[in-house]
Amino acid sequence: MPFDRIAIVGSGAVGLYYGGMLARSGKEVHFLLRSDYAAVKERGIRLRLPEEEVRLYPVNAHAGPESIGPVDLVVVALKTTANDALPALLPPLLAEHTALLTLQNGLGNEGFLAERFGAERVLGGLCFICLNRLAPGEVTNLFPGSLTLGEHGTSGGERAKALAADFRAAGIDCRLSENLPETRWRKLIWNVPFNGLTIAAGGIDTERLLSGEALTAEVRALMAEVRQTAGALGISIEDAFLDDQIAITRPMGPYRPSSLVDFQAGRPVEVESIWGAPLREAERSGVATPRLRLLHALLQTLC
Amino acid sequence: MPFDRIAIVGSGAVGLYYGGMLARSGKEVHFLLRSDYAAVKERGIRLRLPEEEVRLYPVNAHAGPESIGPVDLVVVALKTTANDALPALLPPLLAEHTALLTLQNGLGNEGFLAERFGAERVLGGLCFICLNRLAPGEVTNLFPGSLTLGEHGTSGGERAKALAADFRAAGIDCRLSENLPETRWRKLIWNVPFNGLTIAAGGIDTERLLSGEALTAEVRALMAEVRQTAGALGISIEDAFLDDQIAITRPMGPYRPSSLVDFQAGRPVEVESIWGAPLREAERSGVATPRLRLLHALLQTLC
Repeated sequence: MPFDRIAIVGSGAVGLYYGGMLARSGKEVHFLLRSDYAAVKERGIRLRLPEEEVRLYPVNAHAGPESIGPVDLVVVALKTTANDALPALLPPLLAEHTALLTLQNGLGNEGFLAERFGAERVLGGLCFICLNRLAPGEVTNLFPGSLTLGEHGTSGGERAKALAADFRAAGIDCRLSENLPETRWRKLIWNVPFNGLTIAAGGIDTERLLSGEALTAEVRALMAEVRQTAGALGISIEDAFLDDQIAITRPMGPYRPSSLVDFQAGRPVEVESIWGAPLREAERSGVATPRLRLLHALLQTLC
Repeated sequence: MPFDRIAIVGSGAVGLYYGGMLARSGKEVHFLLRSDYAAVKERGIRLRLPEEEVRLYPVNAHAGPESIGPVDLVVVALKTTANDALPALLPPLLAEHTALLTLQNGLGNEGFLAERFGAERVLGGLCFICLNRLAPGEVTNLFPGSLTLGEHGTSGGERAKALAADFRAAGIDCRLSENLPETRWRKLIWNVPFNGLTIAAGGIDTERLLSGEALTAEVRALMAEVRQTAGALGISIEDAFLDDQIAITRPMGPYRPSSLVDFQAGRPVEVESIWGAPLREAERSGVATPRLRLLHALLQTLC
């Protein structure tokens, strides 16, 4: 199952970065673009990495999926707020063997794709990385970070291993998750409080969020609600993990989580995939998550 | 115990309005002013009432308490965020018989005065009224509203009755509370969610706040936390009162609670007396109030 022809759907910072890295490593990568189409077609892609600058030109830039046609792998890097577009965008890209890798934030993205295109196609990936798209076709990566991949359904498949090898060959620190849902819930334990409270507290960075006792206690309490919800789904996360997440955030300094960056730029915020989906899981499981409910309701109105 | 000489401390909208009404009725009212001192000294006070306009000139305007001297009644109408100033402002106004009436928002104001100046002096009042201070010395009152008075310590005293009679003689619909703490907690059931969530949800009015199911459910849930806290203090409030408070708010239209008005004008918001004080009562009583905690922490940072 070689992943030679690859389509990147949604070419914001995540799509441009991972697609660009794969293209540089020799893959035939096709970018489905909307706002950046003209710029990328004309000037290519520029990746400012910590220790080098990568320029790709020419780039296979497409304004619609039809000119790409069937590929081996579709990387879904759209904002989840644009998921409604996927049922129309993906079919022209699908052969029988085509795999779908969602790199989207939050919960429910693999399920969304599985329901519409078949669970056997679907893999998920979590990006632990800080990317900024400074101009059309230009992405800055401040630290290398990592990508964790896993199969949506069966664990430890050969396909995920092969795909991870391709990412590693492209210079990306790619890891395999034996339990993708657990990995997602662990990431939510960070995203729910930090992405949410930095917005709800008026657009403050993580340093300021953690500078006061009351808000830090609320960060911890929100994490506990997410952890308890995961527990009700059979996903066990040790309590010390919560304090660790606060501890690793302190040295990040005045960091603005991606949702806050989107919010302050006037772009849609992924409220439903990051806060709505875990809240619905909590409700289904009968777990009381009063803070998550309140935060979700505030974010629905704020964003 | 006639209340003939009266000092108004804190001459924002509440102080100018109640002081102005008492002055018009023939009381000797002295206004302790800060920002409006020059304007009131020069041009007097103007009250735009629903059916008439009241102009008072000249006005006993003072920049400090010493020129007022001892009075029969001090009406405390400062923002609670300025309470630190009271220990210096009040002593020159106090004779042995002087009563203190706080018209301030939230919880703990009678206690604050009682601790410093003697519980026997203290009465409390709750203003159910909408006042706007449009210019220095000028207050608009859109509907008459009412004032509920009560003794801090003993209930149903003659003093409260006499004072209520004076307010009524000044044209104010003044009622007596047999149980001032209960009256305060009932008002908090409205103030905690509506003053708080209209700020935390991004500066929206009560109509917009109640336009969505999720936020309306959070309004109700916050009310229930306040009610439960009151219950732990022996103050019983019927559950139907909560729905009534939502029902009476809907016809108010796009109303901006006073805290939101302060917030949007860049003025201090009474975070501790409206949210902090009930939260501390809940903690002392062991009542879980997760939403109030989160909202309080957000408001501390936002305001």
